[in-house]
Amino acid sequence: MNERIARLREQIEQPLLVSHPTNVFYLTGFSSSNTMLLVESGRVRLFTDFRYIDAARAVEGVEVTETRRDVIGHLGELISGPIGFEATTLSYAQARRLENAVPTEGVVERLRAVKDETELASLRKACAITDRMFERLSTEVPFVGRTERDVAWDIARLFHEEGAAVPAFESIVGSGPTGSRPHARAGERMIGAGELVVIDTGCVVDGYTSDCTRSFATGSLNGQAREAYGVVLAAQEAALAAIRAGVPGIEADAVARRIVDESEFAGAMGHGLGHGLGLDVHELPRMSTETTDVLEPGNVVTVEPGIYVSGQFGVRIENDVVVTADGIEDLTGFRKDWVEVG
Amino acid sequence: MNERIARLREQIEQPLLVSHPTNVFYLTGFSSSNTMLLVESGRVRLFTDFRYIDAARAVEGVEVTETRRDVIGHLGELISGPIGFEATTLSYAQARRLENAVPTEGVVERLRAVKDETELASLRKACAITDRMFERLSTEVPFVGRTERDVAWDIARLFHEEGAAVPAFESIVGSGPTGSRPHARAGERMIGAGELVVIDTGCVVDGYTSDCTRSFATGSLNGQAREAYGVVLAAQEAALAAIRAGVPGIEADAVARRIVDESEFAGAMGHGLGHGLGLDVHELPRMSTETTDVLEPGNVVTVEPGIYVSGQFGVRIENDVVVTADGIEDLTGFRKDWVEVG
Repeated sequence: MNERIARLREQIEQPLLVSHPTNVFYLTGFSSSNTMLLVESGRVRLFTDFRYIDAARAVEGVEVTETRRDVIGHLGELISGPIGFEATTLSYAQARRLENAVPTEGVVERLRAVKDETELASLRKACAITDRMFERLSTEVPFVGRTERDVAWDIARLFHEEGAAVPAFESIVGSGPTGSRPHARAGERMIGAGELVVIDTGCVVDGYTSDCTRSFATGSLNGQAREAYGVVLAAQEAALAAIRAGVPGIEADAVARRIVDESEFAGAMGHGLGHGLGLDVHELPRMSTETTDVLEPGNVVTVEPGIYVSGQFGVRIENDVVVTADGIEDLTGFRKDWVEVG
Repeated sequence: MNERIARLREQIEQPLLVSHPTNVFYLTGFSSSNTMLLVESGRVRLFTDFRYIDAARAVEGVEVTETRRDVIGHLGELISGPIGFEATTLSYAQARRLENAVPTEGVVERLRAVKDETELASLRKACAITDRMFERLSTEVPFVGRTERDVAWDIARLFHEEGAAVPAFESIVGSGPTGSRPHARAGERMIGAGELVVIDTGCVVDGYTSDCTRSFATGSLNGQAREAYGVVLAAQEAALAAIRAGVPGIEADAVARRIVDESEFAGAMGHGLGHGLGLDVHELPRMSTETTDVLEPGNVVTVEPGIYVSGQFGVRIENDVVVTADGIEDLTGFRKDWVEVG
């Protein structure tokens, strides 16, 4: 039996119905938007519909059952006895169709938060490709006079040319005032000279994602935006120096946030310091003002302080790092100093 | 107040908490992965976190409240009194945090199933771009000796060149035996001569998706695959002729399925005839062996019979159509006859 299933069995006292497609993929390597996995002490059962059944039958170590498209309805007829289910991803309506089912939260997600060597290899590769993409983007691609959407396309093209599945998520290209919206999409705004452009993107290798942000200046630029850049960089360096196994996510966040809050941009870091990264772009653990997570060896997290001045500009600098016993392995190698693009 | 909110209010007897991001976008034009909308009789309240707050404040006709990242937890503190919630999209764990909340199913989804003229205009445009993409793909792009992934990249490139956001979903490029898995991804398999290649893809215009499949032959090809192609085409033509408002989805499905089942490929149409299409690639109504949906004027549905011979090949032909009182408006114009590519 595979090692991930074995680790899961150590965590559960009754059979667990795994419903989140990413969790099913993690445990079996089987990829489908319509599947459920029942992990019992003596066997593992995989349920899916006709469209995925050929692929399901190629999975080792599982018993495959073909179901109707309505997997959960069909499953209710096939299984009995108390089982746990994933309460944060199964919908209320689906959960109601399972008899004798007990809600659980984050069981597989907590396993996924600690990466094994195979996973780290994929993440290292995704981050290395992202470094090369940023290197080429900042030297080969024109920014001024083109739309954010045009630049987002170049990002996708460069990722493809470097050999990655693209993109891990919709690239954020936030120029000038758009950059003050941390999750702005790449839109039809024409990028001007003398602006900051926040680029937040990532690629996929073997299902594992990178997630990296740089903020480039189109031409020389002084004043507030440049000052904010320096504060964000200092905040990120301080956080990178503080992160190691055993540090609570709320404390890592505070290290960066304090530097922003003691600057003229107090209160302008509107989101958490970072999040786990793996098969999902956002996973455990979290580093924020709200979390109770504590960093463990083998966590892979983003470290991404930012400053947002509404209607004017945004700055964010984001690296991906592996948490180790005494510090970090920084997977992101692309330069973080002030870069001017054309 | 906007017309979609007005239509929603006619359907509900108590305030409805709209939690599905696509439903929130449909009702307000606001796009965020972390938002909730509370539609009451006298007002509409939009909740989101800092990252999206600038964009939220630009939405007309709503009262905006900034919440913690944990929107549902924060919301539980802000609202009281009985409200409906979306039981098919809210997780069990989230639903449990709402007091006095009553499960509802598909309220906004049923509104979305009937498209207005603005939506139809976007869908027509997405389908026209998809036609041009297929025209160029089948005449300009080499298939044989390249991987499925290479061809998927060309699809994305052609969509981009034709002006669409790409892709609506991960393109399926299933060559030879891979084609017998209806939802196979584009992989590293090298496409050979004398194979069928199933291509299922779509683009996005104003948030609305196209979803179109063609099955191309790499060189001349006889025998089973070519026969299956003829059966699928006949099944699709029969379904297109049968679809109009008032027809139950299960009957439309049966029209196509009967033709497959009366051929030598009996039982080989392993999925439903089609599904609604709009802001999501899969929405209401359904045409399948399991559905109770009945077609209405203004529905936009895919019509996509297929034949799958395990380990050998697949054939699928998929058009997007608007359901009208007396028939259909076919949004897909690209040829459906046997096309050989190089």
